Amino acid sequence: MLAFMPLASAPTTPTPPTSSRTAPVAIREVGLRDGLQSIARTLPTATKLQWLRAAYAAGLREMEVGSFVPPRLMPQLADTEALVREALALPGLVVSVLVPNLKGAERALDSGAHAMLLPLSASRAHSLSNLRKAPDDVVREIADIRRLRDAAGSTCRLEVGLSTAFGCTIQGRVEPEEVLRLVHAALDAGAERVGLADTVGYADPRQVRELFERAFEIARPYDRDGAAALACGHFHDTRGLGLANVYAAWEAGVRRFDACTGGIGGCPHAPGASGNVATEDVAYLLASMGVPIGLDFDALMALRHSVAGWLEGEPLHGHIWRAGLPKTMRPAATAEAA
Amino acid sequence: MLAFMPLASAPTTPTPPTSSRTAPVAIREVGLRDGLQSIARTLPTATKLQWLRAAYAAGLREMEVGSFVPPRLMPQLADTEALVREALALPGLVVSVLVPNLKGAERALDSGAHAMLLPLSASRAHSLSNLRKAPDDVVREIADIRRLRDAAGSTCRLEVGLSTAFGCTIQGRVEPEEVLRLVHAALDAGAERVGLADTVGYADPRQVRELFERAFEIARPYDRDGAAALACGHFHDTRGLGLANVYAAWEAGVRRFDACTGGIGGCPHAPGASGNVATEDVAYLLASMGVPIGLDFDALMALRHSVAGWLEGEPLHGHIWRAGLPKTMRPAATAEAA
Repeated sequence: MLAFMPLASAPTTPTPPTSSRTAPVAIREVGLRDGLQSIARTLPTATKLQWLRAAYAAGLREMEVGSFVPPRLMPQLADTEALVREALALPGLVVSVLVPNLKGAERALDSGAHAMLLPLSASRAHSLSNLRKAPDDVVREIADIRRLRDAAGSTCRLEVGLSTAFGCTIQGRVEPEEVLRLVHAALDAGAERVGLADTVGYADPRQVRELFERAFEIARPYDRDGAAALACGHFHDTRGLGLANVYAAWEAGVRRFDACTGGIGGCPHAPGASGNVATEDVAYLLASMGVPIGLDFDALMALRHSVAGWLEGEPLHGHIWRAGLPKTMRPAATAEAA
Repeated sequence: MLAFMPLASAPTTPTPPTSSRTAPVAIREVGLRDGLQSIARTLPTATKLQWLRAAYAAGLREMEVGSFVPPRLMPQLADTEALVREALALPGLVVSVLVPNLKGAERALDSGAHAMLLPLSASRAHSLSNLRKAPDDVVREIADIRRLRDAAGSTCRLEVGLSTAFGCTIQGRVEPEEVLRLVHAALDAGAERVGLADTVGYADPRQVRELFERAFEIARPYDRDGAAALACGHFHDTRGLGLANVYAAWEAGVRRFDACTGGIGGCPHAPGASGNVATEDVAYLLASMGVPIGLDFDALMALRHSVAGWLEGEPLHGHIWRAGLPKTMRPAATAEAA
């Protein structure tokens, strides 16, 4: 196993790094949900389990394995219950699912998943179009889900993903003040974690850094047990800024990112446009900066290769697979030609 | 003309931006030199002039138009003298050329170019392999070139590009202390501007930010007439971090970047690997952050299209050309479907 850490021994800066800059960063693999929901074909459950186990073997310790939406709307994810059950058998894996509403949350609680993610659109137009509810109606549903969860005596973590937080293909600009208001409202309503998502690939790194810094200020009073309430960055690479945005969010203090193996998950309405940031790219970016991620690069690349086979004919995306690791991050034995 | 500025009116942060963060950023188009030198075929001079004039019409005001290397080594750039002559006729365009040594500098001075760029490898192994000289021999040549320039009464700016500043495919790690020593030595020897280049696509954004911040400290005493002595960032997108590195350098204070239309300029030894960061991508990144760049996006995209035709069969790279500008940066009339 190639322990995906830079070989360099000396730090590049004379000032000792702060603990925050050396803190480990977690990558949540969302390919089995966000990735596959954008692809028309349905992968067999057995193949999804291969994906799940290979990602686990590569070191990934949080995965979104499916979505509790009605199967007729998303037949690709109809086996979410079975995937949760199998995933729960992997020691130390945090198993999360997407839930679109209270009904989905009930199924998530029944399934025994460790975490459920409720999307909340910061764009009113996107919210009305996708969920047929205004953002504040979704906030009220967060409170309902929290009550349901508490009444059930469950520890299933309630997480809110604030989508279109950096812009929207329908309404265009999304005011940062509205995003921040909804971060506050979601936490007040009982969400334990909130993430900001660039659902449509509109974000730029300056905006990412500034919005996360302001959101951290709002979320800090809600931090519990050493875990940040503002927890996750979710970026798409639609316009090539995906990794720049991950870096900017990391600079702002984000220590958990969503990613899809092979960069799948693009919008089906924008052919050719790439999707989520690729798991192997985010891993390379963070490892190259000396950030501990606990992942096996060769295993991530092997999984990418498998995904390419399972999804033959679908475009995969990402960058590091072309050129591979630089010499500075590989054992001398595999030295590259000049 | 679409004046490539975000349509958003309100700032995303309540704190007033510092003058440095609102300062204009210059992009130097290096496709005619760094781009074409990596491609075996020779473009006709007339086609290069079309490129030059289209880039100028798009708003680019600094271009590297060729290299004064012996024509037998690089026949693709044998018409550099003619290109300089034509480029000098475009009002306000800063015309720069690459010079490998004193002999090349003589030709640059004769040509009337506004600036000459001498590469200096921070990697000793790369320097010996590419220039057959140790880095300190090149530093001595900088002093010779400066004397030659001053004796000629020329104002041709002497710029040094510190290549392999973030790592090297031959020797691997390049110590930041050695890079900083050479920044100092180049400025002491008479270089008026120094840039740091990630020649082989090894840099990560944390390293970029830290090294530029340290280099700025060293270079500041050499600043003249309000212009920074540490002037330029040159990045390749070999592993997908090109734009993240541009952003990190901008955060460190860099206000001038090299780029190639269509992202050409990849290493011929790494097929499939992308080359220089694409001019249109760097323009999109900076404009999306609200940084004034004075470029016309539609004209940049049209040039990319022309370059694709002129170099038919050669792989082009870059990102923004696939999905185009987000709705937030385009007039309402061209609104995209949701």
